[in-house]
Amino acid sequence: MTYPLRTIQEDGGAVVILDQTRLPREIAFVVLRDLADAAHAIRSMQVRGAPLIGATAAYGVALALQEGQTLENAIATLAETRPTAVNLNWALKRMRGSLEDAPLVARAAMAWAEARAIAREDEEANAAIGRHGLPLLQAIAARNGDVSIMTHCNAGWLATVAHGTALAPVYAAKAVGLDVHVWVSETRPRNQGLLTVWELAQAGVPHTLIADNAAGLLLMQGRVDCVIVGADRIAANGDVANKVGTYLKALAARAHGVPFYVAAPVSTIDFACPDGAHIPIEERAAAELGAGDTVVANPAFDITPAGIVSGIITERGIRPARELGALKP
Amino acid sequence: MTYPLRTIQEDGGAVVILDQTRLPREIAFVVLRDLADAAHAIRSMQVRGAPLIGATAAYGVALALQEGQTLENAIATLAETRPTAVNLNWALKRMRGSLEDAPLVARAAMAWAEARAIAREDEEANAAIGRHGLPLLQAIAARNGDVSIMTHCNAGWLATVAHGTALAPVYAAKAVGLDVHVWVSETRPRNQGLLTVWELAQAGVPHTLIADNAAGLLLMQGRVDCVIVGADRIAANGDVANKVGTYLKALAARAHGVPFYVAAPVSTIDFACPDGAHIPIEERAAAELGAGDTVVANPAFDITPAGIVSGIITERGIRPARELGALKP
Repeated sequence: MTYPLRTIQEDGGAVVILDQTRLPREIAFVVLRDLADAAHAIRSMQVRGAPLIGATAAYGVALALQEGQTLENAIATLAETRPTAVNLNWALKRMRGSLEDAPLVARAAMAWAEARAIAREDEEANAAIGRHGLPLLQAIAARNGDVSIMTHCNAGWLATVAHGTALAPVYAAKAVGLDVHVWVSETRPRNQGLLTVWELAQAGVPHTLIADNAAGLLLMQGRVDCVIVGADRIAANGDVANKVGTYLKALAARAHGVPFYVAAPVSTIDFACPDGAHIPIEERAAAELGAGDTVVANPAFDITPAGIVSGIITERGIRPARELGALKP
Repeated sequence: MTYPLRTIQEDGGAVVILDQTRLPREIAFVVLRDLADAAHAIRSMQVRGAPLIGATAAYGVALALQEGQTLENAIATLAETRPTAVNLNWALKRMRGSLEDAPLVARAAMAWAEARAIAREDEEANAAIGRHGLPLLQAIAARNGDVSIMTHCNAGWLATVAHGTALAPVYAAKAVGLDVHVWVSETRPRNQGLLTVWELAQAGVPHTLIADNAAGLLLMQGRVDCVIVGADRIAANGDVANKVGTYLKALAARAHGVPFYVAAPVSTIDFACPDGAHIPIEERAAAELGAGDTVVANPAFDITPAGIVSGIITERGIRPARELGALKP
């Protein structure tokens, strides 16, 4: 496995993933050899992040066909692993479309090729997001000498096949030698910021961990040049659903004139969804807050209105959040 | 000890405190019998919250004189327990002023009386804050049928001698039978929200624990009628220093037209401090974020500008944050 830049790779007739349930305490890889392995990896969150879940599911279909399972059984098994993951269904639908009319003897090889294409396309889209975001950071560095970015949750290479979304411009900046630093918010209740800390450390990008609560003060103090986050879903009007807490950072960035960008592939834009009010907000288990039998509200996402988003960084360039129509397929 | 409404009480020649280091796991009381006990209680954070630290220090002087220690030694020992606590020095200065010219034989009895006065005045000021804040909540309840308040950190009776500051209006509302509910944010990194959950549960006030990150979504969804927080220091121009994360709630409240109040006794207003930029922000230990050897920024407080504060609820009434001059002693 090429380390640390890919979360999922082929290894002969198997697939090797980085076990994210053991990060950041331990760097461990898991070999997926069959459908059951792939389904377990998604269900148990050994892989996480919408793009990576999709790629893992695609490889899961290839593994299933290789061991003689039917396409239908493979898709049904994988679809049940994380029922709310949009990219999971997208990837399975694509696998079905490319395989269902193919001769049985050819399907396994075709499935490997299609899974590989899905993974490669994610990697390429994210690399393009990095290229398009880079000039934003270069402009700041040209003015200030350095550039300090705030992010939220983990929208790095761990959440994708490679490069990440929000962190792709950061890695691009590092690659061209900019003096870049990242403020990483803890991201309660699941602490995905610790994954971001880990992956930035692997890449040698200077970073500072903060409590989510500290974001407002740092923005007030002028210590943040730019906020970049990922997205779980973007409505047609540009409203952004992302990890809960994103909206508070957007409001604070706005209050202090700091640009707030969302980095996401075009596939994250849901043109069928008119606005943020139509995006369902997943309510997660109270246990995530670890507070015994207290009554808990634990929304996993929040909505940042398009009006306070400086732009959406996609693989097709940076667009104003309110003008996404041109990206519609 | 009258339970659960006082954090500190006299018991013969001793002082009984609720051990806050064991909350919310365990309800345990500690008997302070001498100067060493009192100093340890403050140093080890068995008592916390500026008003309560002040009262404990005052009682510590009484305990010291009772056991035959000198006034100077008592004050020197207690002053070193929490060097940054403003109320600690205020209380010790007041004890010195009332005792240093008194005959030695009378000092111990006078010290008990003065400590009792400090505690009683804190209790009375907080009760008055509750009375002055109550009409705000009654007006909301008259309109909506119920009232849902968001708070941050713990500014309840646990942080004071009794009643609390931010929670005093909540308890006053509960006492008159309003249908009141409190959104309690976790308050990373030290999770003082769990203390607030505990004390609200003791008082039978319905409440819901949330991650700090969820505040923006709840305000956007119209599920919060009013935000009330405490304060660590209020500058002369009305800028408010309070537990880090307060500012993000103030910004989100502002964005959705929800009133944002700060409840604090007049003694919290530092008329010598012109504005928030002159309030030093304490940087706390990285270990509070519990993230190994990662580089951490851990500011304990943030500044909420007077312009987005709806009002300051004091024992002398509610004042616009920008018009505190009339309260100057």
